Amino acid sequence: MELTELKEYLKKIEYLNSTISLLHWDSMVNMPKEAMEYRSEMIGYLAGESYKLTTSEKMKAFIDSFTGMEDLDLITKAMLENITKEYQKATKIPEAEFVQYEIDKALSQSAWEEGKKKKDFSIFKPHLAKMIAANKKFSEYWGFVDNKYDGLLDLYEPGMTTERLDLVFGELREALVDLLRNIQNSDRKTDDAILKGDYSIDSQRKLGEAILEKLGYDFETRGRIDVSAHPFTTNFGNKDVRITTKYNTADFRPAIFSLIHEGGHGIYEQNIPDELLGTSLATGASMGMHESQSRFYENVLRKSMEFWSYFYPKFQETYPELERVDLKSFYQAINCVEPSLIRIDADELTYSLHVIIRYEMEKLLINGDILIDDVPRLWNEKYKEYLGVTPENDAEGVLQDVHWSGGDFGYFPTYALGNLYGAQLFHKLKEDLPDWNHQVEGGDFSSITKWLRENVHQYGATFKPAELIRKVTGEELSATYFIEYLNNKFGKLYGVS
Amino acid sequence: MELTELKEYLKKIEYLNSTISLLHWDSMVNMPKEAMEYRSEMIGYLAGESYKLTTSEKMKAFIDSFTGMEDLDLITKAMLENITKEYQKATKIPEAEFVQYEIDKALSQSAWEEGKKKKDFSIFKPHLAKMIAANKKFSEYWGFVDNKYDGLLDLYEPGMTTERLDLVFGELREALVDLLRNIQNSDRKTDDAILKGDYSIDSQRKLGEAILEKLGYDFETRGRIDVSAHPFTTNFGNKDVRITTKYNTADFRPAIFSLIHEGGHGIYEQNIPDELLGTSLATGASMGMHESQSRFYENVLRKSMEFWSYFYPKFQETYPELERVDLKSFYQAINCVEPSLIRIDADELTYSLHVIIRYEMEKLLINGDILIDDVPRLWNEKYKEYLGVTPENDAEGVLQDVHWSGGDFGYFPTYALGNLYGAQLFHKLKEDLPDWNHQVEGGDFSSITKWLRENVHQYGATFKPAELIRKVTGEELSATYFIEYLNNKFGKLYGVS
Repeated sequence: MELTELKEYLKKIEYLNSTISLLHWDSMVNMPKEAMEYRSEMIGYLAGESYKLTTSEKMKAFIDSFTGMEDLDLITKAMLENITKEYQKATKIPEAEFVQYEIDKALSQSAWEEGKKKKDFSIFKPHLAKMIAANKKFSEYWGFVDNKYDGLLDLYEPGMTTERLDLVFGELREALVDLLRNIQNSDRKTDDAILKGDYSIDSQRKLGEAILEKLGYDFETRGRIDVSAHPFTTNFGNKDVRITTKYNTADFRPAIFSLIHEGGHGIYEQNIPDELLGTSLATGASMGMHESQSRFYENVLRKSMEFWSYFYPKFQETYPELERVDLKSFYQAINCVEPSLIRIDADELTYSLHVIIRYEMEKLLINGDILIDDVPRLWNEKYKEYLGVTPENDAEGVLQDVHWSGGDFGYFPTYALGNLYGAQLFHKLKEDLPDWNHQVEGGDFSSITKWLRENVHQYGATFKPAELIRKVTGEELSATYFIEYLNNKFGKLYGVS
Repeated sequence: MELTELKEYLKKIEYLNSTISLLHWDSMVNMPKEAMEYRSEMIGYLAGESYKLTTSEKMKAFIDSFTGMEDLDLITKAMLENITKEYQKATKIPEAEFVQYEIDKALSQSAWEEGKKKKDFSIFKPHLAKMIAANKKFSEYWGFVDNKYDGLLDLYEPGMTTERLDLVFGELREALVDLLRNIQNSDRKTDDAILKGDYSIDSQRKLGEAILEKLGYDFETRGRIDVSAHPFTTNFGNKDVRITTKYNTADFRPAIFSLIHEGGHGIYEQNIPDELLGTSLATGASMGMHESQSRFYENVLRKSMEFWSYFYPKFQETYPELERVDLKSFYQAINCVEPSLIRIDADELTYSLHVIIRYEMEKLLINGDILIDDVPRLWNEKYKEYLGVTPENDAEGVLQDVHWSGGDFGYFPTYALGNLYGAQLFHKLKEDLPDWNHQVEGGDFSSITKWLRENVHQYGATFKPAELIRKVTGEELSATYFIEYLNNKFGKLYGVS
């Protein structure tokens, strides 16, 4: 069998998956509401076809024919490893069980919706139990060495282990809880009420586009910006990378900040080189590495004084209400730390604690170390312990996120990993580009974008995230840089250390 | 084999075709420009899969198993006939020839683009020759009784023959040429210069939406309106039917009028009943019957005095420049007759002459009765003879339309057939709803929409167009009603008869 033949075959899977992504994008952005059922049938059919190709006898023949072959180049090796893993993950689950799981998942998602609406965990409970049981079983089918949770983690963060996460998240959690306590004990208070105003959608869009253009997101020839209920990024190949946002006329932050976050994802996908198309590697190295790019743009740049030295005057020109808010007050306001109940509204510091709580609970659930009945109680205890807040009901507690209802265990950690990778990359970038801050103050992001493209984006998924971070920074993944970055930043802001 | 199994199978083809339509729609409305190549690959792959299913051994087995079976209901019979025809049309062409044709078609289309740009038929000529040769051969493979052109006509207008078309188009042409001559000799002149103004896109969109809503197009839950270079309608099932338009701020007619035209197509598709999904019949009876619906809304209603008695005051409220234009002058201006060179800009009267010229030429070309070298000369002669105008170059002559470059012979006649079906249906509708004009003057289109739904839309493609027109009007297709309608209308407008 020829390698070109395999690549032709992989391209078909890629076309199907790109098509499915477009059908999803369209359903979020454009689709008339009565079309949902038919659209689900279309997606279901195409997803089935993609699954068939991924798990076919032909795919097995390709894998068998190339495995063990010597003198394969880096990309071909990574490609083979990737498709072999996908093949095994899919084929080791008996088909009947997988079909049942898909049916259970749909029921679970609507039960979660209802439970969240009624603020009642008990409605979702039996479905959560099924989702956990199925994922435990999948992990057993796949086989694991140390921890049943590893197989699930590996779906989103190839090669990541519970052992490693315990280490870095443990260190991170302690540092965050300490820093948060210090901030809460500090005399300095920041307030973001000064940012309320009347911001037209049109002006927000223009400012957002201007920022994204500066950052290097190409929305003229290879991207576009739309509106959806929840901001997201999707792509169909590397020349059609779309981001969405959501506008609030009383507050420009949701739209502008989410555009910058999604822009990070978008720039990553736009910078994937053509030669990776049809190799199964034409995407980010992992969900965590993808998130590192959005977090890099969102946290490191967008929340920095350097960034706003350049952009804030443009905001002041556009919005008269900001004329009375000086740069320093603005910078403090957008970096306000305040423990809260809802993950997606959390600030840069507390965000990772929300994630760590979910990680700790998933690990316990998948390993059978807690009872399903104890989930809300344990959730609330952890929120109290780490963040000092307590949900008043399940909707603002354990039912807030959609992930578990769709069986997505192992996904949450990637959100916090993104922060860690992002800070570690930033530390290295500062060494390589000591002048980065003056460049950003001058509105020049080209060296930064180039650095990210050369060090991260150009490889797509050729390297596993652990390999990539080692290759770029010369070190293993570590929580140190993110902790240092937060201590330094919030230490100054709140006069603590 | 079970009928349900066949329907499941047909649904897969429908999902693929709906997906391809969405990929096309997106490429016209949303897609960033650099994505074209990858998008073509995606569409090519899915079109290949759809073709495979349509021509598979399995499809043959379905057809063989159900053919000749007794006691089949009407829908099942029509479905079988439809898939058998598609199967035969596709499988009778040797695969290698079909593949070569697809390659030639792509080259032909770019040669046509270049030729049109350079106003030079000779660039396109060898490609046109190939397109004609291939379509002649296809028609031979399919077999024909009287005329080689019949097989091509049948692709777009099932059951239609050259013999029949010669008859109705012959009658129509004579009547149109006569009426046009009379109008040109008339003293009364109309002028549409009074309609020039400054019309914001937003106001045009609002007026267009208000009209479409009145006509019965559902853009709240099952449709939407977007912008594209050329207005079109597409659908993915019957609950997601999208129309596009194009705005010109100096003239509201292009957007408003094309919205009404596309709305006619859209209402047809939205009214296709659910039970036809997955039967291959969930669409219009033919291209001509589809066009009859858009022409009905565009010509019969939108160009009528009754329609504007209701809507014109709303336009005058919106646009101060129209205050000085009274209803009668407005009505005259939008019904101005003026022979011109470009089909898509033609008025209601001359439009069909543009189509008849193309029909007459296609017939000659497919039957080998003229030389390719003579095409531009013959084109120009016919324009001179029927319309009294002569193109200054090939771009405004024989190269103006895209159809031939894509091998679409047999398509043009459906545009004029739409006028004939539309007028014949209207004649019957007036008998059934004698109060139609007062209803329209009062802005009530519900009885008309209901009449069309019950008499035309609800059947989808269950009946062939000839059967349908007979079923609804009790008569064969005839040019009489359209001729009567035009004579009556323009007779009054220009004081001729």
